Amino acid sequence: MMNLPVLLCILLVISTVQAFQYMELVKYVDSHQEQYVETLRDWVAVESDSSNILKRPELHRMMEMVAQKLRRMGGTVELVDIGEQELPDGQKLLLPKVVTAQFGANQSKNTVCIYGHVDVQPAKLEDGWATDPYNLTDISGNLYGRGASDNKAPVLAWIHAVEAYQNLNMELPVNVKFVIEGMEETGSNGLDAMILAQRDTFFSDVEYIIISDCGWLSRRPALTYGTRGNCYFFAEVEGPKQDLHSGVYGGTVIEPMTDLIGILDTLISPSGKILVPGIREAVAPLTDEEWKLYQDIQFDMDSYKNKIGISQLMYSNKVDLLAHMWRYPTVSIHGIEGAFSDPGTKTVIPAKVTAKFSIRQVPNMDPALVKRQVTDYLYSVFAKRKSPNKLKVTMVIGAKPWLAETEHPLYKAGKAAVKRVFDMDPDLIREGGTIPIARTFQDVTGKSIIMMPIGGFDDGLHSQNEKISRYNYVEGTKLFIAYLYEVSFIKKTTV
Amino acid sequence: MMNLPVLLCILLVISTVQAFQYMELVKYVDSHQEQYVETLRDWVAVESDSSNILKRPELHRMMEMVAQKLRRMGGTVELVDIGEQELPDGQKLLLPKVVTAQFGANQSKNTVCIYGHVDVQPAKLEDGWATDPYNLTDISGNLYGRGASDNKAPVLAWIHAVEAYQNLNMELPVNVKFVIEGMEETGSNGLDAMILAQRDTFFSDVEYIIISDCGWLSRRPALTYGTRGNCYFFAEVEGPKQDLHSGVYGGTVIEPMTDLIGILDTLISPSGKILVPGIREAVAPLTDEEWKLYQDIQFDMDSYKNKIGISQLMYSNKVDLLAHMWRYPTVSIHGIEGAFSDPGTKTVIPAKVTAKFSIRQVPNMDPALVKRQVTDYLYSVFAKRKSPNKLKVTMVIGAKPWLAETEHPLYKAGKAAVKRVFDMDPDLIREGGTIPIARTFQDVTGKSIIMMPIGGFDDGLHSQNEKISRYNYVEGTKLFIAYLYEVSFIKKTTV
Repeated sequence: MMNLPVLLCILLVISTVQAFQYMELVKYVDSHQEQYVETLRDWVAVESDSSNILKRPELHRMMEMVAQKLRRMGGTVELVDIGEQELPDGQKLLLPKVVTAQFGANQSKNTVCIYGHVDVQPAKLEDGWATDPYNLTDISGNLYGRGASDNKAPVLAWIHAVEAYQNLNMELPVNVKFVIEGMEETGSNGLDAMILAQRDTFFSDVEYIIISDCGWLSRRPALTYGTRGNCYFFAEVEGPKQDLHSGVYGGTVIEPMTDLIGILDTLISPSGKILVPGIREAVAPLTDEEWKLYQDIQFDMDSYKNKIGISQLMYSNKVDLLAHMWRYPTVSIHGIEGAFSDPGTKTVIPAKVTAKFSIRQVPNMDPALVKRQVTDYLYSVFAKRKSPNKLKVTMVIGAKPWLAETEHPLYKAGKAAVKRVFDMDPDLIREGGTIPIARTFQDVTGKSIIMMPIGGFDDGLHSQNEKISRYNYVEGTKLFIAYLYEVSFIKKTTV
Repeated sequence: MMNLPVLLCILLVISTVQAFQYMELVKYVDSHQEQYVETLRDWVAVESDSSNILKRPELHRMMEMVAQKLRRMGGTVELVDIGEQELPDGQKLLLPKVVTAQFGANQSKNTVCIYGHVDVQPAKLEDGWATDPYNLTDISGNLYGRGASDNKAPVLAWIHAVEAYQNLNMELPVNVKFVIEGMEETGSNGLDAMILAQRDTFFSDVEYIIISDCGWLSRRPALTYGTRGNCYFFAEVEGPKQDLHSGVYGGTVIEPMTDLIGILDTLISPSGKILVPGIREAVAPLTDEEWKLYQDIQFDMDSYKNKIGISQLMYSNKVDLLAHMWRYPTVSIHGIEGAFSDPGTKTVIPAKVTAKFSIRQVPNMDPALVKRQVTDYLYSVFAKRKSPNKLKVTMVIGAKPWLAETEHPLYKAGKAAVKRVFDMDPDLIREGGTIPIARTFQDVTGKSIIMMPIGGFDDGLHSQNEKISRYNYVEGTKLFIAYLYEVSFIKKTTV
């Protein structure tokens, strides 16, 4: 039996060795910053917009680039065929392959699987970007470009974390797997089936799944333990067989736009209340614990207002605002396809107009029920108008919310990693956005999941001038390096 | 003193000579049909979209082409500088020059001035065109292309009418002037001032103004004696300083789209009734004479419905329908700029959205008053929402309606020309669309105006697959030839 001083001595040696290794890794990361930025530049240059079918070749190219990068690092890499998607007109389009990779297969170590995506939201210079969205531009340490923060830099940070261990000839503390997809921004088409298919193969030895597809709430690092889901709807009103001159025909036909505006206006009250019957009733009530947690979170209402650039938020106190950001549903009307949307004037009666709107999902809402509630409601509202036009409501995305246990060892390891890199405790936050795959991973594989963001609170995801700061990108890489180390200490039995 | 038989004989000879000349002209036109189509092809190929500032160079080129064509025919041609337009951002952009031309200056003859425009509405293949909108395509005798009917073919038909007289060495029965502009589709910016400036020069010897910027109501030729005006509005709601991710921010901000949809929905009732207070009260009541006239017009409700492709019109009897097409106001919502309008899904909260809508004007509405009624109403509706967003309502086009006297000699000459070419009486119709310049010509120059359309009832102006048929283009050219002859008989004193 070992006596206490000897044990302490051994522990000290281990601790010193580990601390030393970390500093080596930090030095490596700092000295490779420019290379990291250049690789991000190459990735951002690929217009991998998954919502635009015309850009599909770029998306395929993007997946190849990811695979190549991982192959060069010696990973066991596969490009997994996930089939085709059916377009509204019945045509079939090849989905971008999913990249899987594996580094290490030591059965005595934990195995983590990092999920990320390399497709992006649409972006055009004319939308109001200050720089070309597909040309990564460094302005005062911020790297502007579509997909920079969502989600290309975080994916690269994970890859670079593994690479740092490799290039310093340090053994990886855990086995690392990657699942990188290219359809996240449009609902991860095909990924659910792929996960299900590989549940007992690729995912069988995975203990933990790590997702870094979100952002901090402030300048303080954060761990995310919940996300909202999303039900995305198309409401199409079709009238004349083609667009009509509003002078020549105006006054003789009930215009589809009038009908569409009319039904959209019944979705939300002026103060933002959802008017679709049954939606709000399903929401889990706010608990005292949540109230307390929100109350303690570092969140400055004024800086949030300034960031958005508005004079008044929907709620004037922090807890209400955070609750409505994270754990209450909301409706957004994104736009209308088929109507006149260019600058200038056009005197047209659009023949077919399709509104796009979505309802964020929270526990205990059920997308299948929401679909029925919304469609039933809109059809009944439309019927009252007695219009000769035709309404078609479809739900094109139905993603569930996700919620984790913050006392899980995964989160404890996360807190330790944040402490090591940033010398502070992370905020425990939720995410208003949707990472549907978290819920799928949980439901299908039964594995525990942690969300560990490195994106800044002001990165402008999905909007103009998306960016990630060099600070978040580089320190984020260090965080991931530290996390691979911390997560190795979780006993395999805790799975 | 001449005796009766001699007089009759002389009259017979004159009549025979004239009839012979007309048949020569008809033969000339028929044998030049392919050249007419080719010239139209050249003109349609120019993307002279006046609403898109990026196409302005094309518009300038179009005006040069018109001037060159008229110069080659020996006309006295000028390209009149009408200054600049100010864009919403304060930038200045050169307006397309106005082409004026003169053929003949015989003081004993009447002088007519033909007005037309060669700018077009926007058109993109993706909007649902079956053919490239800027490549004139002949399908079964219909010539498809943007601007084919509105208004390039009618302008060319007038030019070819003059050219036919010239090339057959026949004296023009009247002096002919042209005023061809390039800003009609966006409100004839700069033309009013030009007409005012040249009232006592170019326009001083003009007796009659002829406009062929409209279409027939059915397969029967028509003369148009009235048009609706148009007040075109932008309603801009501005909130956050940039677009936001609807997941991340949804629930914390009052979204501009919600506000915009809310105020748009207060413009029109589901049955098409204008809800802006005061608008309907200004409209002149339908007279018994009008009722009788409409009752007699050849108009088939079923073929109108089929053409549009809808199951039910806003009114089920002919008189109500024609009245609402021609002499009642109507509101059309054309679209929204700044929101998501592409195919696919985007989870965005648009930061600034601008609705485009217009209200057709009829006697006795006053655009200045309508502007006040609409803006006051929308601001008051918006105020009730207590939104932190900002609303800005602007009227960007304010065009008055126009109405002519159908018993005027100009119209009698028109009836005679139609009779000669088509062997039938024309319908006397009004136009739901707007030709604001008619009203300006009337107000500024005091000249009498006739609208003599040659476009088909199903030409699809302002919509996809605009076309003119070879029949209307060619027979229309003959109609103009005949009209130049008929109008020469109006006594100069009737002006």
